[in-house]
Amino acid sequence: MTVSIGQYLLDRLKDYGVGHIFGVPGDYNLGFLDMIEDDPNLEWIGNCNELNASYAADGYARIKPMGALLTTFGVGELSAINGVAGSFAESVPVVKIVGMPSRNVSENRRFVHHTLGDGEFMRFYAMYQGISAAQTILNKQNAKSEIDRVLAECALHKKPVYIGIPADVPHMQIEVSSPMLYKPKSDKKILNAFIEAVKKTLKTYKSFIAMADYEVNRYHLNQELHDFIEATNLPIASLSMGKGVFSEQHPNFIGVYNGILSDDRVTNAIKESDCTILVGVKLTDSLTADFHYICEEPTPKIEVHPLYSKIGEKVYSDILMQDVLKKLSHLNFKSKMPSKEPKEKPKLTGKLTQRQFFQVVEKHLQPNGVLIAEQGTSFFGAIDVSLPQGTSFIGQPLWGSIGYTFGALLGSALADRKRRNVLLVGDGSFQLTAQELSTMLRENITPIVLVINNDGYTVERCIHGPERKYNDINMWHYTKLLEAFDVHLHRKPLSFKAGTVESLEQALEQANKHPDKLAFIEVQMDRDDAPALLKKLGGLFSAQNSY
Amino acid sequence: MTVSIGQYLLDRLKDYGVGHIFGVPGDYNLGFLDMIEDDPNLEWIGNCNELNASYAADGYARIKPMGALLTTFGVGELSAINGVAGSFAESVPVVKIVGMPSRNVSENRRFVHHTLGDGEFMRFYAMYQGISAAQTILNKQNAKSEIDRVLAECALHKKPVYIGIPADVPHMQIEVSSPMLYKPKSDKKILNAFIEAVKKTLKTYKSFIAMADYEVNRYHLNQELHDFIEATNLPIASLSMGKGVFSEQHPNFIGVYNGILSDDRVTNAIKESDCTILVGVKLTDSLTADFHYICEEPTPKIEVHPLYSKIGEKVYSDILMQDVLKKLSHLNFKSKMPSKEPKEKPKLTGKLTQRQFFQVVEKHLQPNGVLIAEQGTSFFGAIDVSLPQGTSFIGQPLWGSIGYTFGALLGSALADRKRRNVLLVGDGSFQLTAQELSTMLRENITPIVLVINNDGYTVERCIHGPERKYNDINMWHYTKLLEAFDVHLHRKPLSFKAGTVESLEQALEQANKHPDKLAFIEVQMDRDDAPALLKKLGGLFSAQNSY
Repeated sequence: MTVSIGQYLLDRLKDYGVGHIFGVPGDYNLGFLDMIEDDPNLEWIGNCNELNASYAADGYARIKPMGALLTTFGVGELSAINGVAGSFAESVPVVKIVGMPSRNVSENRRFVHHTLGDGEFMRFYAMYQGISAAQTILNKQNAKSEIDRVLAECALHKKPVYIGIPADVPHMQIEVSSPMLYKPKSDKKILNAFIEAVKKTLKTYKSFIAMADYEVNRYHLNQELHDFIEATNLPIASLSMGKGVFSEQHPNFIGVYNGILSDDRVTNAIKESDCTILVGVKLTDSLTADFHYICEEPTPKIEVHPLYSKIGEKVYSDILMQDVLKKLSHLNFKSKMPSKEPKEKPKLTGKLTQRQFFQVVEKHLQPNGVLIAEQGTSFFGAIDVSLPQGTSFIGQPLWGSIGYTFGALLGSALADRKRRNVLLVGDGSFQLTAQELSTMLRENITPIVLVINNDGYTVERCIHGPERKYNDINMWHYTKLLEAFDVHLHRKPLSFKAGTVESLEQALEQANKHPDKLAFIEVQMDRDDAPALLKKLGGLFSAQNSY
Repeated sequence: MTVSIGQYLLDRLKDYGVGHIFGVPGDYNLGFLDMIEDDPNLEWIGNCNELNASYAADGYARIKPMGALLTTFGVGELSAINGVAGSFAESVPVVKIVGMPSRNVSENRRFVHHTLGDGEFMRFYAMYQGISAAQTILNKQNAKSEIDRVLAECALHKKPVYIGIPADVPHMQIEVSSPMLYKPKSDKKILNAFIEAVKKTLKTYKSFIAMADYEVNRYHLNQELHDFIEATNLPIASLSMGKGVFSEQHPNFIGVYNGILSDDRVTNAIKESDCTILVGVKLTDSLTADFHYICEEPTPKIEVHPLYSKIGEKVYSDILMQDVLKKLSHLNFKSKMPSKEPKEKPKLTGKLTQRQFFQVVEKHLQPNGVLIAEQGTSFFGAIDVSLPQGTSFIGQPLWGSIGYTFGALLGSALADRKRRNVLLVGDGSFQLTAQELSTMLRENITPIVLVINNDGYTVERCIHGPERKYNDINMWHYTKLLEAFDVHLHRKPLSFKAGTVESLEQALEQANKHPDKLAFIEVQMDRDDAPALLKKLGGLFSAQNSY
C-alpha cells in the first residue's frame, strides 16, 4: 500500500489511541497540519501557546493510552520542553512531533528563522534526547521503520518520544506493509525465579502490606492490581503520585502513605508489617515527607514494576507487572488489616478554611470523574480527599511545574467527554497558563474549575519567606476572564465566588446540576492558611535547602 | 572584604548595569531572592510565568547593557529556555540564574521534586550549553572567579550566560578583592593590516554603500556608526533586524534593505554600488527576502563586526568595531547618494487597512521612544514606518518566537521609564503571553499597546493554508482583560477599539496626551489583509518549505 509519510504517522497514532493532537501552527508544520485537519478521525486542538499544549497532551495521555503534540521548530519545541520533561519525569506517553525546516534548507546550513542563525539544525533534537525515550528525524528511507520503532518505545516505556518531520517530508509517498505491533512478553524463566524468591520471603516475614503508585496508572493495570488485592486480601496504601490507583472505597484500602506525615492508620499498618510489596512505586521527596520514612530504611521490600521486579537489590528484568501480579495472587501473604476508626465528620459552616474547603469538595465529588490537583495547597490538601468510585486523580508531585494542571485539564477533559473533571488550582499557579481557559470555552468542555484565591504563592510561603513580597502576586478578577477570553460564549459558563462553606456548597451543587456547562468558582481563603500536611512538609523542604 | 556569594553576584550585575531582575520564585531560589528583595538598588519583577520573564529580560537587555533572569531548577529554567535561546540567536546579553537543589541533595543523587527523578542534576545545564556563551555552577571555592568570568563573557559576546546557585550557596561568605573588569582591546597590527587592505579596495571599486544591522545596537555603537557616516558621507541602509540602528531622519539614510523586496531607492543604490560595507550585519532569510539578493551573490563586501572584520573571506580577528569605524572614517570612499523621490502622502480615511494602519502609526510616533513590532504582520508592516529621531526599534526576525514582544515590552519599558514604548502585536501572538498585562499594570508602566485583531495567524495564512481552521484563533474581548488582570487598577489605563482611521487617530492622540497611562488599543482589521511585504515574503517562505 502506498501512503504519505505524514498520513502513515497519523494512522499509527490512531492505532495507539490518539484521537486529538495538541499544539500551535508554525510555518514548518503547516503541510502536516493539513493532513491532521483533513483526517476525519483526528481532531486538531490549537492551543494558546506551546507550553499549555504540552501540558494538555500530558493530561490527555494520563487518561488515554497516548498523547500527541505538534509544534514548529526551535521556538515552538523549546516552549514545550518543560511540559515534555514533566511527561518524562512522571512517565507519560506523549509523542512530540516537530515540523522542521526542509532538507533543502538544513543541508545547505542556511541561516533561517527559528534557528540560532548558525546553520545548526540538531541542537534542539539534542536537548530533547535528555527527556525522551527515543528520537528520530523522518525521511523517505526510514519513515516506516522509524515511526514503528519510536511509537513502540513510547508505548513500552510510557515516556515521551521525539519525531522531527522536515517540511518537505510529510507528503512523500512510501510503501507500507503491516505495522510493527508492540507486544511485550515476560521471560518465563525469570518470572518463575522471581516467584520462587518471593515464596521464600513468605517464610521470612510475618506480615505483608502493599503500597501502589503511579506506574500502575500509566500501564492501565488497575484491574490487575484490584484482582491481586482481592485474591491476597492484603491491606493497601497508595502513594500520592498515584492516588486513586486502587479504589479508595475498597475495604482493603487503608489510606495514602506520606512518610512520617502519614495518618495513624497508615502509620500503624506500616509499623505492624515487616515486608512491603511496592507495586509501581518510585519514592521521591514529595511522597515521603522528604525521605522521612516511618521505619528506618532499608526496610525489606519487594518491588513490582511494569517491566521488571526486585527483591531487595536483586533485579528480575523482563517480567511484566500484569504477569507478576497474576502469579503473586496465588501466594499466601500473611497480613493484618488495621482497624478503621470511624472518621468524625465535623460540621462544616462559616468562613472557608483550607481544612473545610477540602471536606466540602469531597462531599460534592461525583463518581467516575477526574480530580486534578495542582502542586501546592491543592495537591497536599487533595491527598486527604476520599475519592468516590471510579475517580481518577491527576497531580504532578515529582516534576511539580506550577501551572501544569490547568493545561492538563484541557487534555484530560477532551480525552473522555463523558467524565466530569474537577480542578483544584491556586491563584499563583493559575496565572501561568490562564489563557487556556479560552481553548476550553472554544472546545465546549465542561469541567468544574476551583481557583483558590489566597493572594500568592502559598506553597512557597510554607517553605520560605511567608512575609516576602516576592511571594505576592497581582490580584485578578478571575471570574471576569470568562467574558474576556471568549466573545461568543456559545454555552454560557457558570461563574461563582465563594468565601464561605455555604456559598461553596451552593456553587458545587449548581455545577453538579449542570454537567453540560463549564463551572468556574473563585474560592476565597486566607493568605496564610494552608493544609496541615503542606505546612509540615514545607518545614522539611526548607531544611533540604540549607547546608 | 567579606561578602556573601549571592550578594557578590548581585553587586557585579549592578556594575554591568542591571537594575531589575525578572523571574518567578521557586523553593530552590528563595534564599537568593531574599537578597534581591533586600538590595535597595535592585528591583525584583515577579512575572506571571518564566517564558514571559525570559522575554522581559531580553527586552530589558536590548535597552540596558545587560539583563537578568532568575528561575527555579528544572521546571522554571525549561519554561524559560525558549526565551533565552532567542537571546542567544539575536545576541542579547541576558544572565540566566537558576536556584538549584542544595549539594546535600545533588551529591546524594536524591529523587527530589523538579528533577526527572533519576538522581541527575546536570541535564538542564547541558541543555543550556547549546544556547549560552558560558556556564557555571557556583560554590565557595569558585564563586569569585566564576562570577567574574561568566559575566565578562556575557558582556563580551552579548550572549546569554548560565549561572547555577545551589540552595545552600547564596549565603556562604567569600573573600573578594577588586572584580575583574571587562575591557576588550584591538590588536593594533591586525587593525592596521585591515585598514591597509581596505585602502586597496578604494582603487578597485568605484562606488561604496554602507548597510548596518543589529550588532551595532547590541554593542551600543550607534554614535560611532553615525560619526563614520558623517565623516565618509556614505549612503546607508539598515537591515530590518537592526532597524533604527542609524537615524532614519538623517539625509544619508536611504531605507531598509529587504533583498529583492527592497523599495526602489534602496534597490537602485545597491545596483549602482560595486562594494558594500556591512556594519554589524548577519544575513538571514527574514532580512533578505529568503536569500533573494538584489545582485547575484557573491558581491564584493567588507564586513565590520563587533570583535572582528572581514574582506571577502579573509577574517581579521580581535579588532573592535569602534576602532575600525574610527580608522575607516579617514578614508575616502567614493559613493553616489541615490536621489530621494518625495514620498506621496495619501489621504488616510475610512476603514482601516493594513496599509493605512502603519501610516497612521507613523504619523503619531513621538521622538525618543521605543517601537516594538511582533514577528508577523506587525514587523513586516513596521519596516516601512519611518522612525522619528531617537527612536529605538525592537523586533525578533531571526528567532521569531510569537508572543515574544509582549513580554519584551515589560522589560524595555522598565529599562527606561522616561521613554514611551509603542507595541504592535497581532491577536494570535498576543494570546501566547497575554497575562503579562497583569505585571505591566502592577508595575505602572505606561506603554501604548496596539493589538491587531484580525482573527488568527495572518503570517501563517500568508505562507500556507489561508482558509485552514488551524490558522483561526478564539476571538477575545481584548479590552476586558484590563479589568480582569488587575483588581486595583491604581492608575486607570486608557482603552479603545479602533476599526477606522479616524478612531485610531483619536485613540493615539489620547494616548500621546497621557504619557502617564497605559493605553490599550484593539485595532480591528480584515482577516485576509496583510502588509504587501509580508504577502510577497510569505510566498518565498512557502517555497522554502517544499522539496
